[in-house]
Amino acid sequence: MKSYTALTQRFARLAALEEATGLLHWDMSAMMPPGGAGARSEQLAALKRVRHDLIADSAVAELLDEAETETGLDSWQRANLCEMRRQWNHETALDGALVEALSKACSASEMVWREARPRSDYQAARPHLEAVLCLVREAASAKAARLGCSPYDALLDEYEPDGRAARIDPVFDAYAAFLPDFLEAVLSRQGARGPALALDGPFPLEAQRALAASFMAALGFDFAHGRLDESLHPFCGGVPEDVRITTRYDDADFSRGLMGVLHETGHALYERGLPAAWRRQPVGRARGMSVHESQSLLVEMQVCRSRAFFTFAAPRIRAAFGREGQAWSAENLHRHYSRVERGFIRVDADEVSYPAHVILRYRLERALIAGDLAPADLPGAWADGLKALLGIVPPDDRRGCLQDIHWYDGAWGYFPTYTLGAMTAAQVFAAAHKSLDGLDLQIASGEFAPLVAWLGREVHGRASLLDTDALLVAATGSPLDPEVFQRHLANRYLS
Amino acid sequence: MKSYTALTQRFARLAALEEATGLLHWDMSAMMPPGGAGARSEQLAALKRVRHDLIADSAVAELLDEAETETGLDSWQRANLCEMRRQWNHETALDGALVEALSKACSASEMVWREARPRSDYQAARPHLEAVLCLVREAASAKAARLGCSPYDALLDEYEPDGRAARIDPVFDAYAAFLPDFLEAVLSRQGARGPALALDGPFPLEAQRALAASFMAALGFDFAHGRLDESLHPFCGGVPEDVRITTRYDDADFSRGLMGVLHETGHALYERGLPAAWRRQPVGRARGMSVHESQSLLVEMQVCRSRAFFTFAAPRIRAAFGREGQAWSAENLHRHYSRVERGFIRVDADEVSYPAHVILRYRLERALIAGDLAPADLPGAWADGLKALLGIVPPDDRRGCLQDIHWYDGAWGYFPTYTLGAMTAAQVFAAAHKSLDGLDLQIASGEFAPLVAWLGREVHGRASLLDTDALLVAATGSPLDPEVFQRHLANRYLS
Repeated sequence: MKSYTALTQRFARLAALEEATGLLHWDMSAMMPPGGAGARSEQLAALKRVRHDLIADSAVAELLDEAETETGLDSWQRANLCEMRRQWNHETALDGALVEALSKACSASEMVWREARPRSDYQAARPHLEAVLCLVREAASAKAARLGCSPYDALLDEYEPDGRAARIDPVFDAYAAFLPDFLEAVLSRQGARGPALALDGPFPLEAQRALAASFMAALGFDFAHGRLDESLHPFCGGVPEDVRITTRYDDADFSRGLMGVLHETGHALYERGLPAAWRRQPVGRARGMSVHESQSLLVEMQVCRSRAFFTFAAPRIRAAFGREGQAWSAENLHRHYSRVERGFIRVDADEVSYPAHVILRYRLERALIAGDLAPADLPGAWADGLKALLGIVPPDDRRGCLQDIHWYDGAWGYFPTYTLGAMTAAQVFAAAHKSLDGLDLQIASGEFAPLVAWLGREVHGRASLLDTDALLVAATGSPLDPEVFQRHLANRYLS
Repeated sequence: MKSYTALTQRFARLAALEEATGLLHWDMSAMMPPGGAGARSEQLAALKRVRHDLIADSAVAELLDEAETETGLDSWQRANLCEMRRQWNHETALDGALVEALSKACSASEMVWREARPRSDYQAARPHLEAVLCLVREAASAKAARLGCSPYDALLDEYEPDGRAARIDPVFDAYAAFLPDFLEAVLSRQGARGPALALDGPFPLEAQRALAASFMAALGFDFAHGRLDESLHPFCGGVPEDVRITTRYDDADFSRGLMGVLHETGHALYERGLPAAWRRQPVGRARGMSVHESQSLLVEMQVCRSRAFFTFAAPRIRAAFGREGQAWSAENLHRHYSRVERGFIRVDADEVSYPAHVILRYRLERALIAGDLAPADLPGAWADGLKALLGIVPPDDRRGCLQDIHWYDGAWGYFPTYTLGAMTAAQVFAAAHKSLDGLDLQIASGEFAPLVAWLGREVHGRASLLDTDALLVAATGSPLDPEVFQRHLANRYLS
């Protein structure tokens, strides 16, 4: 096991460098003044280049070959070696110059996007998007050759290990077919009940921050091991010992900022629950982005938008904002938080229409990567696609193809993991329900520890020991079953 | 110039890595929750190790040898090459394992110090201090062999290029001899005038923050290129495009937090004024720590504790805290800000007694590095030394040898630069006074741009082109002349 042991040391150093990169990204989003963008781009590119050079060192290739013939590795060690090979495949498929060029192009593009989005100025962002796409396509081809799959699958594989478009297509096509009638039924039932009572603002940001932090603490977030900050695009970064989540607040509407926090808290609990014994080793990481998203959506959608949660939450929300009356009842708050509508913005979408946003982006990014769609034609294709899926057309690019950071920041092949995650969340929560007696009552009384402990055993603590399918089988008894999600929706919105 | 050009690329990447390290340090002090300390230590150690390996690469040694025989370099390029050699000497004198061990020991020690200081628990911090000292002594010996100087001088050289104890001793001994009578005279005159009128608190932190930011802006700090935050130990970090300064506030006393900000703003203006054309090259950096400290002390001590400054500042301070009356007059505020007293805490010391604190630490750290003093005996030696210099004995270690982060964080050979900087500040400000007509009137009306522009030309923009002596000659007409500082003190406190 000499070669395996040598690899664990190298990958620990690589992980520490990636953690530094992660902190620079967090800072860029949550703290950095605008004038720091150019320097940050150089710093990130240098770190990525150094990481690349370390992993592309010929000694690593030799150690991997040798370790794969070594005997006596246990299942965690074998899985660790397998994840090392995966990282090596992804990284060494690209040469150092491409890695550095991609990093710089993404940083530059992201900064332009930040300015262009509020102005709805796609023409300003487009040259940067084109530059990023050009480099991403080059990277996708190189990885495809290494992995023996299509360029798009090669991108997907980075976020969703072993994910393949051929397996996603039927899942997404089935949802696209299910959605129109279901959405119509939900909207018609919702219309018949009439609107929820209005929740009038303003909601001071300090009160929103304190309320969010109190729910985080109730869910088990430990502020000695993490922070809550603000950024344009909410995210969860940091490391298991120091998880950094962000949200954005609107003083006219507390609901989005709060749900953003609860969502990111789900991600944070996953990170905190990863096994300390495998810290900084590839097998010790979260098992891909669909599983990660399943943990955020389990907290946000399955737990915190349930009727049971508002029994716990409503008195705290009333106290935070000094409100009372019928509008602030658990029932009315739940109606707000489970409202369904056809909207333009993915991050504001309800869980019924959200998959339509993802399916749109999945189809568009596949066409862009394949070269079947040019960035110049993106706004038109976006409008056509959204019309087909949800029956609406965005009035401007701010509410269309400029709304998400992902493509501008180089994250291609990422979008499908949101909806795979939503489906996984429904399935995992259904399994938790079977295992934990009285789960709804626990949620209604703010006792989240049994659920978090169950998730820790069944999902978090397994890290990347199993592949995604095997992890789902271990936790729920079956691989991904998209019908569980449809049943969840029918149960919440039509029963 | 092929080798020289190749070196500029390598050193640019090294600089970007150091910038990443700098951000991790800033975050550790200003943002990181306590539970993140262990992971941060690993990240910093990995970055330092990677930087070391990159500079210790045999190709760099060859390129340096070749470049030093190349012709056609201009004066900036020659100076750049000279600074590259200096960095290479310092870094390659140590092997990678020692670099990594030092980084980890310092991170661990710093975190323990943070807990031990408020509890005045030197016994808890001592084992970590011993571990750090042991490694620092090893590093000092290795560097001494490389640089051909004493171990202490080798440490000093890192902060104060070409600085040597043999040149500092007479300067500090002279001040130690000057101080007792001068201090007595100042205190006696101050006593005869009676105390300044009290400035009663509390001073809400938000008002303190806003006031500090308004003075920073008046001095020319651009918030598009920097931030103001809070940390236990105020400092200036970041990069020229994104300068991060910190302070700490006390709601019973606004004066220290505010002066901390003005001090760090002086550092920030230096960083912002470094030549963009030499960004990320060794010659483009600030010229050592005594010059850096001269710029912070020029702003804090020479400008912002002057009577002229309070003509500008007093109305703003009154408005910030909603106060009026005689206590809040420019004259009374100036008396507060130029009060002299025998105190235990270096960072709270006035400019007359401050050098005594530095001389104490300089003498003690030389003895610790030489092995003439053991950490176990430090509290006693501290008490004896302070008694000899200032006539007082600290009542506990919190106000003694636990008060400063430096030794616990691995910064040995740093302290003397504070007082060299104070002396340099007096000399540079005297030269500015000769060059700029009506400087006092400008300061009294809040017009700092002419002074900052002059500093930009004479100091900031020269970066590391000249050595410290030559820089002082260029800016002021003579090398360091400690008597200018004594004249400044006599003028402010006895005239």
